[in-house]
Amino acid sequence: MTESAAIHIGFDDLVALLKTIFVRNGVSEPNAQILAENCAGCERDGSLSHGIFRMPGYVSSLKSGWVDGKAVPEVEDVAPAFLRVDAKGGFTQPAFFAARSHLIEKVKANGVAVLAIRRSHHFSALWPDVEPFADEGLVALSVVNSMACVVPHGGHKAVFGTNPIAFASPRAGSAPFVFDQASSAIAHGDVQIAARAGHDLKPGMGVDRNGEPTTDPKAILDGGALLPFGGHKGNSIALMIEILSAALTGGYFSGEFDWSGHKGAQTPFTGQFFVVIDPERGGNHAFADRVAQICDLVLDAGQDRLPGERRHNTRKAALANGIPLSPQNHDMLMALATP
Amino acid sequence: MTESAAIHIGFDDLVALLKTIFVRNGVSEPNAQILAENCAGCERDGSLSHGIFRMPGYVSSLKSGWVDGKAVPEVEDVAPAFLRVDAKGGFTQPAFFAARSHLIEKVKANGVAVLAIRRSHHFSALWPDVEPFADEGLVALSVVNSMACVVPHGGHKAVFGTNPIAFASPRAGSAPFVFDQASSAIAHGDVQIAARAGHDLKPGMGVDRNGEPTTDPKAILDGGALLPFGGHKGNSIALMIEILSAALTGGYFSGEFDWSGHKGAQTPFTGQFFVVIDPERGGNHAFADRVAQICDLVLDAGQDRLPGERRHNTRKAALANGIPLSPQNHDMLMALATP
Repeated sequence: MTESAAIHIGFDDLVALLKTIFVRNGVSEPNAQILAENCAGCERDGSLSHGIFRMPGYVSSLKSGWVDGKAVPEVEDVAPAFLRVDAKGGFTQPAFFAARSHLIEKVKANGVAVLAIRRSHHFSALWPDVEPFADEGLVALSVVNSMACVVPHGGHKAVFGTNPIAFASPRAGSAPFVFDQASSAIAHGDVQIAARAGHDLKPGMGVDRNGEPTTDPKAILDGGALLPFGGHKGNSIALMIEILSAALTGGYFSGEFDWSGHKGAQTPFTGQFFVVIDPERGGNHAFADRVAQICDLVLDAGQDRLPGERRHNTRKAALANGIPLSPQNHDMLMALATP
Repeated sequence: MTESAAIHIGFDDLVALLKTIFVRNGVSEPNAQILAENCAGCERDGSLSHGIFRMPGYVSSLKSGWVDGKAVPEVEDVAPAFLRVDAKGGFTQPAFFAARSHLIEKVKANGVAVLAIRRSHHFSALWPDVEPFADEGLVALSVVNSMACVVPHGGHKAVFGTNPIAFASPRAGSAPFVFDQASSAIAHGDVQIAARAGHDLKPGMGVDRNGEPTTDPKAILDGGALLPFGGHKGNSIALMIEILSAALTGGYFSGEFDWSGHKGAQTPFTGQFFVVIDPERGGNHAFADRVAQICDLVLDAGQDRLPGERRHNTRKAALANGIPLSPQNHDMLMALATP
């Protein structure tokens, strides 16, 4: 997209537009506000695979009856440092927001607290869930399982979702240190791009429909599956994420939910887990300075950039100049928003 | 080592022998008991790189004055769900044991608790620290940073330690699910083995002294360094481990401590971080059953074994027949134990 072709839209205007689409498709007003801010935030930060690109999928899932846009999450205070939320078949983000301020109170009071969300649909990036904790001086780790598309290391049948893990920490003098990474070796979108371009993938990215390792992106897409990142080590991370997001929360495993009765469903119906820590209780009163030091050390050692850095730069530009949308994407949103 | 050549020793006898060695080298009686049980447990389970193989390194570090074998750790109760320990320049394991039962009380009372240990030397495997929590029905995650020998992804200068992460969870009907994995692409010991055998390594394992990627194990050992596992994703895990183990605890980063005045020092002087969760608070009263289910699913999907499985089988054999020591290793221990 060239800059001249782009339509620039302000953050609030994009939120309003997306909210209209959600409400039109059966999402309650408060849930729509949360989802629209989340999705517009992804687009604003250049996290495009979780931005407006997802809107047709949101709409399709809502229309299929697979996800309940009007779900009212139920927060359960089960221990001084443990909250649960039953998302009741709705999206995860409203369930998270229903517990968020209570969770922060618990973290401040106890030094750490966990939040276990179940029966929830997470269809966005994970960094928007953790980054705001770091803005408030807290350290947050979150994991979510998704839908079976990753075979175990050495295996032939998909069990894991792409199972992302996200971490956020305050960092003195700059935006928080944040990463958000799938436990799969590659994103599905990147396999699709390689297939279209006719490029082979590097070894270790996926298997074909018979569970045999392949570098052919088409073989992965045609009944095959992805592999975990980093061999057996990434595999163990993916398995830990199933345990924390599903076994611990009471949600479904990535390979367990049955959406066969909901044509058009795209959103995984699983669980999400958070650990949030108050680093001030660590007694190191220069915590954010120390994080800045270690970040500087890795940059000095030649790492080209920190995860999240590009996103923060994109955000700055978008807040100054508006969020650039291609005319095609703008038309797509307008069509979804118009009766 | 052939079975006929091995000398089999009972667990308690090995603990007693190792304890003698620790005490002879300036470790206090209670600290020596803890370290001897830990090291003998690694040997018993076939975790040989952290078993008696490490005894000369323990002795060398103690003799150098770098680590204080008589350190009395100080536990600080800083919040309802947050404990700190100042290991005071001693080994981590006694510092951990000083806080362990208090930590469990906090987990049971609050649903989760964290433990931040600083000014500590961790020279063993990480799984012995987490596995016993799972035996008590708890879920535990721990990370520890070590000594700079891993360059950041795309970088040329070592910043991270091998920075292991360990996780343990109850699993119905069998030993707990436990993994303990370095954040480096390969263990130093495996690079040494390849160098001796004259084999090249797979790409992505390390860099030479100029920070250039190499598959030559000798170039890695000759002033080079390791790479993180799994590219930029493992890199982010390694960085998170520095943040949690050092920035949060008040310990040193892997590249920060100065042992130049202690010839023979081998033990990293850093920090360790634990999160321990009571899965019963998750409200899923079949937690351990659910963990067993997902473990069965990955095995059914073709993963050859779960991490920790081989270790548990080795333990069973050792408890039945004694722990096999080569005559050379037996002599080495006897020499260290005899005045």
